[in-house]
Parts: sequence; C-alpha cells; structure tokens
Amino acid sequence: MTNDNNIRLLFGQSLRRIRINKNISQEELGYLCGLHRTYISDIERGTRNVSLENIVKLASALNVETKELFEFKH
Amino acid sequence: MTNDNNIRLLFGQSLRRIRINKNISQEELGYLCGLHRTYISDIERGTRNVSLENIVKLASALNVETKELFEFKH
Repeated sequence: MTNDNNIRLLFGQSLRRIRINKNISQEELGYLCGLHRTYISDIERGTRNVSLENIVKLASALNVETKELFEFKH
Repeated sequence: MTNDNNIRLLFGQSLRRIRINKNISQEELGYLCGLHRTYISDIERGTRNVSLENIVKLASALNVETKELFEFKH
C-alpha cells in the first residue's frame, strides 16, 4: 500500500488536472464549493487529508462524479 | 447537490455492500486496515466524515480500487 503522503499527492494531482482541464482557477473552485482558495491549493500540493464531504463538494463544483477524482492507481 | 448526511450514508452503504459481498466482517475489515470495528460501523451508518487516507485504507483492505467505493450518484 502506498503511504499516506503519496495518496494525498495523487489525489491533489488528480484534482488539479481536472480543474485545469475545465479552465477553472483555484479561486473560482473555492468559491463554487465554499472552501478557501488556500485550502484548494493545499489539497493540490498534497498537504491536506481532505474529508469525504469536501471531496464530494469538490467533485460537485467541478461537475464530475466523485469517482473521477480517484482515477489513479495506488 | 445532496446534503452531507446523505453523502456519508451513501458512502457507508457502498462500503457495507462491498464488505458483505466479500464476506468480510466489520471486525476483520477493521483489523485489515488498522481501524476499530466501531469506527467501521459508524462509517457504514453514515455518522462519520471519513478522511481521504482512511477511505484509501478501506479500499486497500477490501482489495478494490478507491473509486469503486464511489459507485453511487449524488
């Protein structure tokens, strides 16, 4: 099993990839899901152990299914 | 967007469905991923806002990809 730092980083990279593909800034994404821009930045850099509820908020704000944020191997 | 209680419940039901399909008890699952049996029970009843790292631990212990825990609509 991959260690926890890697999981956070893999998730953060996945979030960033989808966000950039949709041409949404960190600030816009934060606004759309009610989270602070710096929190989005932290998640993308792998420094946050984000919760189920915030994972789903992020997916909803990006208009993707939650499972699409987990399109990586671990 | 579905409210947070529903998300926790949908996730919990998904976890329970996969666990039972694999014929693993809550106690066994807890042992496999280093979480307490009562914590597994709480997650399945939708009373916990489980973290990214624990979501991935649960998936690994069940030998499924993390995204399989999110096979529900919200």
